[in-house]
Amino acid sequence: MRKNEFVPKIPYGMRDFLPGEVGQKRQVEESLIRLFARWGYEEIITPTMEYMETLQAGSEGIEAHLYKFFDRHNRLLALRPDMTTPIARVAATRLKDQEAPLRLCYLANVFRYEEAQAGRQCEFYQAGVELLGEGGATADAEVVALAVESLLDAGLVSFQISLGQVDFINGLLAEAGLQGERSREIRQALTSRDLVGLEKLLADSGIPAEAQQLLRRIPLLHGKRELLEEARSLVNNDVSRRALDNLAQIYALLEHYGVAEHVVFDLGVFRNFSYYTGMVFEAYTPGLGFPVLGGGRYDQLAGAYGESCPATGFALGIERVLLARQRQKLEVCAAKSDVYISWEKNGLVQAIQRATSLRQEGLRVELAAQEENRMEAQHRCEGRCCGRLEYFTGD
Amino acid sequence: MRKNEFVPKIPYGMRDFLPGEVGQKRQVEESLIRLFARWGYEEIITPTMEYMETLQAGSEGIEAHLYKFFDRHNRLLALRPDMTTPIARVAATRLKDQEAPLRLCYLANVFRYEEAQAGRQCEFYQAGVELLGEGGATADAEVVALAVESLLDAGLVSFQISLGQVDFINGLLAEAGLQGERSREIRQALTSRDLVGLEKLLADSGIPAEAQQLLRRIPLLHGKRELLEEARSLVNNDVSRRALDNLAQIYALLEHYGVAEHVVFDLGVFRNFSYYTGMVFEAYTPGLGFPVLGGGRYDQLAGAYGESCPATGFALGIERVLLARQRQKLEVCAAKSDVYISWEKNGLVQAIQRATSLRQEGLRVELAAQEENRMEAQHRCEGRCCGRLEYFTGD
Repeated sequence: MRKNEFVPKIPYGMRDFLPGEVGQKRQVEESLIRLFARWGYEEIITPTMEYMETLQAGSEGIEAHLYKFFDRHNRLLALRPDMTTPIARVAATRLKDQEAPLRLCYLANVFRYEEAQAGRQCEFYQAGVELLGEGGATADAEVVALAVESLLDAGLVSFQISLGQVDFINGLLAEAGLQGERSREIRQALTSRDLVGLEKLLADSGIPAEAQQLLRRIPLLHGKRELLEEARSLVNNDVSRRALDNLAQIYALLEHYGVAEHVVFDLGVFRNFSYYTGMVFEAYTPGLGFPVLGGGRYDQLAGAYGESCPATGFALGIERVLLARQRQKLEVCAAKSDVYISWEKNGLVQAIQRATSLRQEGLRVELAAQEENRMEAQHRCEGRCCGRLEYFTGD
Repeated sequence: MRKNEFVPKIPYGMRDFLPGEVGQKRQVEESLIRLFARWGYEEIITPTMEYMETLQAGSEGIEAHLYKFFDRHNRLLALRPDMTTPIARVAATRLKDQEAPLRLCYLANVFRYEEAQAGRQCEFYQAGVELLGEGGATADAEVVALAVESLLDAGLVSFQISLGQVDFINGLLAEAGLQGERSREIRQALTSRDLVGLEKLLADSGIPAEAQQLLRRIPLLHGKRELLEEARSLVNNDVSRRALDNLAQIYALLEHYGVAEHVVFDLGVFRNFSYYTGMVFEAYTPGLGFPVLGGGRYDQLAGAYGESCPATGFALGIERVLLARQRQKLEVCAAKSDVYISWEKNGLVQAIQRATSLRQEGLRVELAAQEENRMEAQHRCEGRCCGRLEYFTGD
């Protein structure tokens, strides 16, 4: 091969997936879509880009992380940062006359301009479901149970779902007399688990020491069923109590689904999208410091597009699941050819016929694209880790 | 559902795929990837965006159709307009030390800012293969034969591959003494089949009337094997003659692949990327005025990224194939649930257990997300075209 000077790079936060990795990615994704279908979820595809105003109507504070550009009529577009927002748009427009509930799922790449990290570049892949048009704990439990089944389906053997409820903290903030900007800042510090920032905000808040103490405890409120009783004893408002009732109902159903062993309560779980309105959850796996899956209830999002409609769902990070499989030593063999067919002289004609026939049997066959002698063929077959060589000389 | 004022639109040239369409798209795509694997092609994924300079190094005249934007360091990026260019980049960088040939394939969305049309929006989906590192007719024939198999695999029953060779016209242009800008304009008029523009360019060219007459005939030069002899009698230069020899070799191999019946020669076939250097081909199907598939040999592209390497391949337009299936009445049933499980009162627990068990058997099960009476359940099951209802009362 001849060299020249220009060596192209790829943009920050982007990556190529080479053949072995793609084989695993495809296997996980196709299996998930089949699982979602068995639960009644139908796949949907939306454009890679949306109008900025569509994304802004759905979620606050997202602009800083968007890939933005102008179309030829000077309207501001952005690459989608999630699939929940576009699906809410479709549900509120093209699918609004369909009988509820809608069960939709997707496999998609999304884009967020932020620091690239292990398991998440600026462009990354998600698989997820949205259950639209149902407000109760039954719908929430279905979605959490399907999240557990998804992680099992993807081959993870060790993981934990942390289940919280945004109204628990909303009730506490209101009970403490906090609202507006101050309340948002405290939520933000809790979401990002910024305990130093939280400390400072609470010290400046002017609320009673007891209320401060309570808010400081939120990140520590995790455990199995007894945690709900502990939390109930701490609060003095109906919003937080109803949130705990909702979690108890969901948990009871998860026991019937046979997945409760994977679930713990964590009242410090918040998600990084402002659209969540009820239960929220994240899945963690040993050795990864970030969730492999996250979701929750978002009853106001479709309303931003003209059709109010309760909804719940989750998204799973494909690269993160692949990384977790690696850490759990679940890598499978990369796809390779089953047979390498080579030839010399007039052997090409027979070689083509043989390749055609083996392919019809379903085998993966690589056919030499130029004449080579038997030793070269043997060498190339081994170099490609191909178990079987067939060689034609045309005699 | 409650209404408000904001009704979101999607950007020009973009579309949503609703569940029924996605089911067909997925079926075609998964089947193609399996076919490609049987031919020894491994899947690869590249980023949705590339640096502008990477795309420009690969292909001239593409800028006008790109979705461009700046990153935060003011470097110009663009959404990929094809997959051939990114794959050449990967082959010339990360895969350059692998033993040739490389057989790579992809399923990807690409972006071209141009007038949206039936079968092609500004964002559209392609499946394709690239065979890198082999220069001969054997590699070209493999790629054309796989193109035929791909269209059969996608369920098309009636289609035709038009096979041309860019060196045929290159030889003629040189023979007529045309070069530089004038030569490019005439190629452009031939590529876009702009016969009025061609007429004017020839009249202004100052070349002999016989040479003009010959160039005017190019769009008419199509037919089966006898066309090659007719074309040979018209030319008087080695470049064009070698192009015809190359086509004859490829065709002979296509007969051995058993696919020659689908192939005709068309010396007026040019593709709309400047990187093609040898045989080029397009597939047409009745009732669609644009190709469903196109490809060819491009021996200079990887050289633009530092590693010169012969290459050949094709891309198939997924939406166009779906449209052709529709026209050929090959639509299949949209994916639906197999069983609808509903419940009232305490029936939910049994309903969950039954759904779990049927899903384990592989059935697609939709579980009611709220209590309903038996008549409502029957109605909803029918509304979802689901063949089987199971109803649990908890008694």
